[in-house]
Amino acid sequence: MTISSPFKVLHSQGKARRGELKTFHGNIQTPVFMAVGTKATVKAMTPDELKDLGTQILLGNTYHLHLRPTEDLIQTMGGLHKFMNWDRPILTDSGGFQVFSLSGLRKITEEGVHFKSHLDGAPHFLSPETSMQIQIKLGSDIIMAFDECLSYPATPKQVEENSELTYRWLLRSKAAMTRPESLLFGIAQGGLDKKSRIKSIEQITQVDLPGYALGGLSVGEPIHLMHELLYQVTEAMPFNKPRYLMGVGTPLDLVLAVDAGMDMFDCVMPTRVARNGTLFTWQGKVSIKREQYKLDDGPIDRACGCYTCRNYSKSYLRHLFLSGEILGARLNTIHNLYFYMDLMAQIRKAIEDDRWPQFKQECVLRFSARSN
Amino acid sequence: MTISSPFKVLHSQGKARRGELKTFHGNIQTPVFMAVGTKATVKAMTPDELKDLGTQILLGNTYHLHLRPTEDLIQTMGGLHKFMNWDRPILTDSGGFQVFSLSGLRKITEEGVHFKSHLDGAPHFLSPETSMQIQIKLGSDIIMAFDECLSYPATPKQVEENSELTYRWLLRSKAAMTRPESLLFGIAQGGLDKKSRIKSIEQITQVDLPGYALGGLSVGEPIHLMHELLYQVTEAMPFNKPRYLMGVGTPLDLVLAVDAGMDMFDCVMPTRVARNGTLFTWQGKVSIKREQYKLDDGPIDRACGCYTCRNYSKSYLRHLFLSGEILGARLNTIHNLYFYMDLMAQIRKAIEDDRWPQFKQECVLRFSARSN
Repeated sequence: MTISSPFKVLHSQGKARRGELKTFHGNIQTPVFMAVGTKATVKAMTPDELKDLGTQILLGNTYHLHLRPTEDLIQTMGGLHKFMNWDRPILTDSGGFQVFSLSGLRKITEEGVHFKSHLDGAPHFLSPETSMQIQIKLGSDIIMAFDECLSYPATPKQVEENSELTYRWLLRSKAAMTRPESLLFGIAQGGLDKKSRIKSIEQITQVDLPGYALGGLSVGEPIHLMHELLYQVTEAMPFNKPRYLMGVGTPLDLVLAVDAGMDMFDCVMPTRVARNGTLFTWQGKVSIKREQYKLDDGPIDRACGCYTCRNYSKSYLRHLFLSGEILGARLNTIHNLYFYMDLMAQIRKAIEDDRWPQFKQECVLRFSARSN
Repeated sequence: MTISSPFKVLHSQGKARRGELKTFHGNIQTPVFMAVGTKATVKAMTPDELKDLGTQILLGNTYHLHLRPTEDLIQTMGGLHKFMNWDRPILTDSGGFQVFSLSGLRKITEEGVHFKSHLDGAPHFLSPETSMQIQIKLGSDIIMAFDECLSYPATPKQVEENSELTYRWLLRSKAAMTRPESLLFGIAQGGLDKKSRIKSIEQITQVDLPGYALGGLSVGEPIHLMHELLYQVTEAMPFNKPRYLMGVGTPLDLVLAVDAGMDMFDCVMPTRVARNGTLFTWQGKVSIKREQYKLDDGPIDRACGCYTCRNYSKSYLRHLFLSGEILGARLNTIHNLYFYMDLMAQIRKAIEDDRWPQFKQECVLRFSARSN
C-alpha cells in the first residue's frame, strides 16, 4: 500500500532536483529553505515581512513550544498558524534535537526521553507518541518523526544502536500520527559512515511515508565530511519523495546539498548571525561592526534588492549594531533572509533552465572565498 | 524686527488650538505628538512604519547622537534625515536635559556644562555654542536652545538663578544659530511657581523666535502641579507661536496640556512602556504579562485599528513578551504609537469641529480611570 505522494520532481539536472510539495496550507517549490520560527516567531520579523521575502514555509520547534506556551494553549488558540498569524505551511521538528542540545539531565529509555526544562528545571518526557501528540495539537503541515539525534563523534556501536532505536521510534511515530491533514516525514540517522548511513536510510524508507530527512548532520563534524557523505547517500533515498537535510546550513552547504540531490533545508544561521552583525553577500560575509564601515555610506551589497540595502548605509547599520538597537537586528535579519530566499530562487531557476552545473560552480567559488 | 512666523493657529476653542507649523521638511499639523528617536531610530520601528502610523515629526537626542555616532559622522553621511532614512521633520533637543539626567560627574559654569559620557566616562563639554553646532551638523528642522534643566524640588533662589542662566544661554544660542533652514525654539524654565514661571516665559519671549517651549516639567513633581501650572501660564506665551511642552507625557497629560493651550509634545513613554509590556487603550492600560491574558484570544483593544490589534491575540502577545521576543517589542510599540497618533488626530478633529470641551471631558474620564 503506497501513500499517494504529495511531491513531484518537476525537473532535474544531474542529481539536483526542482520539485513541488503539496501541503494543507499550500504548495512549496523546492529546493526550499525554511526560516526558523523557534518560539512561534521568526526572531525580529513579522509574517508579512517574511512573505515579502518569498518565505514559503516556516519551521517551529516542538521542544520550545511544548515548554512555553505549551501545545495545549496553542491548540486552544486555534493552532500554531492562527496563533502566530502565518497562513502558509509550517513544519515542526520532533523535539528530539533540542532535548539533546538544550535540556539538562536527560535519560534515554526504549520508551522515550526524560529531561529537565532549560527554563525552570521541571521534569518532562518526550516519546514518539507524545511528540506526535504535540505536533498534532500544533497543527503542523509537516510532522517529523521522533528520533534520537546522535552527537559527533560516535562509535560504530553507538551509531548502530542509535539507528535501531530511531527505526523503532519511527514505527511508533507512524502509529501515533492520526492527523490526515499532516504529512509525516521519517528521519534517517547513521552518523558519517556511508555504509551505516545508507543502512539507516534503507531501514527508514521501508516505512512508506510522504517524505524523508537526514538527521544528525552539521552537529560538530568537519563540514567536508557531511558534504562527501551527501554525495554518497542521497540516491539511497526515494527519488519521488522530498529529501530534507535537517539543520543545514551555510550558503555553500545549501548549494552542495542541492547538487547532491536534497530538496529541503532549515537553519537558524541567517537569522542568528544577523542579530550578531554578520551579513551574507555574494562577495562574502560582512561583519558590520568593523571600523572600516564607520563612514561607509554604501549599502551592504550594491547588487542586493532588499529593503535594508535599498534604504540604509553600512555606517547606519554599524551605528545601530553598536547601540544595540532593535532596528539593527531587524534590518540585518531582513537582509540575510532575503539573501537566503534569493539564493534558493536562483537555485530553482538554474535547475529549471538547465544551468545548474555552471551556477553551482559560480556559487562554490564565491562562497568558498574568505569573508570580508 | 520680527521673524515671519512659520506657525499659524487655524482654529481655536477655549484655549485649545488647532495649528500648522511649516518646516523645511514639511508642514506639521498641531497639536502634535513627536515620537522619540533617541539614537537615530525610534526603538523597534522602521521609518515606513512610523509614516503608516501618521507620525509627522521625530525627536532626536543631541546628547546621545553627540556621543555616538557623533554629529561629525552624521554630517558626513548627509545629515540625520538621510542617515536614518526619515524625510519628514526632525526636532532635536539641546542635550541639556540628558546631561542632567544621564551623565556622570558634571560641572556647570557660565560658559557651559562639563560632563562625563555615560558610555565610557570620557570628558565632554556642552554650551549654547556647541549645542547649536551639533544640532546644525545634524541638520534638524527645529533646534532647541541650550538650557539648564532644573530638577524638582528647587528653592526660589535656585529657580531664579536657573532662569537667569537659561536666558543668558538663550541669547548665546540665538547668536550661534546660523542655519537658515532650521527654526530655533527658546525654552522657558521657572519651576512650578506661577510667578517665576511667567517671569521666565516673559524673559524668553522677549527674544523673537519662531517657537517657545516649557522645560523642566514632568521631572518628578506631583503631576497635578504641572497640570495646574499649565492652565496658569500658557497665555503668557505668544498666541501666534507654537508652544512646546517638553518631555510630556501620558494621554491625560496631553489632553490637559492641549486644553491649556499647548501645541507640541514628545515623550519616550509610549515606546518605552510598550517594550515593558504596558499597552494603552481607551479603556485603560493593559499589562500584557498578566495571567488573565494567557488564553485570551482577543486583541488588545477590539476598537483599535492598528496592525497588532488586527492580527494578534493578547495570548500571543503575552507569549512573545514572556519569551523576550523582539517581535513582542515591535507589536507593542506599533500599538502604543498608533494609540498616541490616533489620540492626537482625534484631538485635532475635535478642535476643528468645535467639540473640544466634550471630547476633553470624555478623555479625562477615560484616562483618569484605573488601569486594567
